[in-house]
Amino acid sequence: MISTADVELAAARIRGRVRRTPVFAADDDVWFKLEQLQHTGSFKARGAFNRIIAAGELSAAGVVAASGGNAGVAVAHAAREFGLAARVFVPATAPVVKVAKLRQLGAAVELAGEKYAEAYDAAVKHAADSGALFCHPYDQPDICAGQGTLGLELLEQAGEPDTILVAVGGGGLLAGIAAAVEGRARVVGVEPRTCPTLNAALAAGAPVPVEVSGVAADSLGAPRLGDIAFAVATRTGAGSVLVDDTTVIEARAALWDRYRLAVEPGGATAFAALLGGAYRPAPGERVAVVLCGANTDPATLTSPSAAPPAARTAR
Amino acid sequence: MISTADVELAAARIRGRVRRTPVFAADDDVWFKLEQLQHTGSFKARGAFNRIIAAGELSAAGVVAASGGNAGVAVAHAAREFGLAARVFVPATAPVVKVAKLRQLGAAVELAGEKYAEAYDAAVKHAADSGALFCHPYDQPDICAGQGTLGLELLEQAGEPDTILVAVGGGGLLAGIAAAVEGRARVVGVEPRTCPTLNAALAAGAPVPVEVSGVAADSLGAPRLGDIAFAVATRTGAGSVLVDDTTVIEARAALWDRYRLAVEPGGATAFAALLGGAYRPAPGERVAVVLCGANTDPATLTSPSAAPPAARTAR
Repeated sequence: MISTADVELAAARIRGRVRRTPVFAADDDVWFKLEQLQHTGSFKARGAFNRIIAAGELSAAGVVAASGGNAGVAVAHAAREFGLAARVFVPATAPVVKVAKLRQLGAAVELAGEKYAEAYDAAVKHAADSGALFCHPYDQPDICAGQGTLGLELLEQAGEPDTILVAVGGGGLLAGIAAAVEGRARVVGVEPRTCPTLNAALAAGAPVPVEVSGVAADSLGAPRLGDIAFAVATRTGAGSVLVDDTTVIEARAALWDRYRLAVEPGGATAFAALLGGAYRPAPGERVAVVLCGANTDPATLTSPSAAPPAARTAR
Repeated sequence: MISTADVELAAARIRGRVRRTPVFAADDDVWFKLEQLQHTGSFKARGAFNRIIAAGELSAAGVVAASGGNAGVAVAHAAREFGLAARVFVPATAPVVKVAKLRQLGAAVELAGEKYAEAYDAAVKHAADSGALFCHPYDQPDICAGQGTLGLELLEQAGEPDTILVAVGGGGLLAGIAAAVEGRARVVGVEPRTCPTLNAALAAGAPVPVEVSGVAADSLGAPRLGDIAFAVATRTGAGSVLVDDTTVIEARAALWDRYRLAVEPGGATAFAALLGGAYRPAPGERVAVVLCGANTDPATLTSPSAAPPAARTAR
């Protein structure tokens, strides 16, 4: 569980390490938080810095993560900034381009099994054996609090929005923002129907395993909602809406066509809720939409058929 | 010639018609003005709106422009917003995709000759014959003053920068910004060596015809600097630096790789001056870089070899 105070502490810790990403007042009373411009191309840098700084002095084993995606790249980046060793366990199915990016950032990359769960287990074991600091992709308090610093910025930049729409995978970003703005703005989690971790957890009364697939699975395809995200979402009354994969694709194309904003499918998911009507603001309601990542092949912005394959789910 | 007051009047006229594009505090004391997020994907919408609104009541002939590029698209967009007829003369060499965009915006497109000069002459003749309002791509006071509204925003958003780096083609944007910030910030025009209209004009003591080519010619390839731009540049002491085409390509790739900003080659030209060292800020100097357009095939962001051909020069 995390509170506003945890996020405020995180903001003080990571100041100067992360970018204060701009807010763009788009047409029709909608604000975009351009978090895809963050270091490493996603919000994940915020949590990675907070986790590492909060841990204090680290052993020579440095940090370890399990991820074939944005979380791993963020941990590798933050570790490099502090001159720390970073080891990232990825499943054999991880995209070559992501592995190359991890190595470019100086991380040691370990292939571990065919599925994400095997890479995760190997990372946890390595942390226990070596003393390296394990950085979870979403379900650690310092990770969530770091992501939430985005929410504090939004309150300052978007003139106190009524509602914040945010994509949900494991829920670290939702947890952080909901804690950051608690009592000041409402948070609504948006998920593709093909990656419904929050929606399924709220329906079941607890995080439950979900099957994930679809166009945004490479960034939103967590196997279940994090416990911290569930606790914060229920405490703060966060909403949940689902969108179709086709609407995510349309939203991504519209962000390029109308605004020249390039994002990955997961980064377009929150906007898809507005575009397709899954979330309909009341008259005068001030809505901020978080664009959370852009680690994508830009060639696919204008050729949706070239979008990432549906089966990749590594985080 | 235009003054700060002309730009302030333009800002009042076009308020609500154009987007207040965000400023992004990038690393190392550099601000980016994200004008590529403007309506129609470039700053040209500002001047088009100001020109049309300043003209008052128009005849049924509406507006006319000569352009196979961003200026024509901006005029077509602004005309459509007011329900005005728009006619755009383009040379037969204009890219099919730009012609399609003009038609999508409701403009009548007229093919006129093989070279831009012929399209220009045809547009001027049409204006004289029909009474349509001619919108020059850069060398009319209301066009320049409209573009300059970007400069007024920058003063508010970037905390009074010392220096503003801006790409130059015909010089409408440079003229407008230099008038907007006169006495408060210095403006430096940046041009590819292959499109040196400002540099050649300052060397010759007057605008002179230049041969244009290279990677950014599709947006910066004006045949000479505008008279207004020359007058304002010399009055305000605007600087001029040149960059290589290869540095423009590197700057465009770096904007995507480091910041996930997608721009066209002309939109990356101002940043190329910082990246390649053509402009070296003094210690503590606050520099704002205008990213002015993103009408580009995003597939070329990561494959510079797929960049636009060097020979296209239509505006």
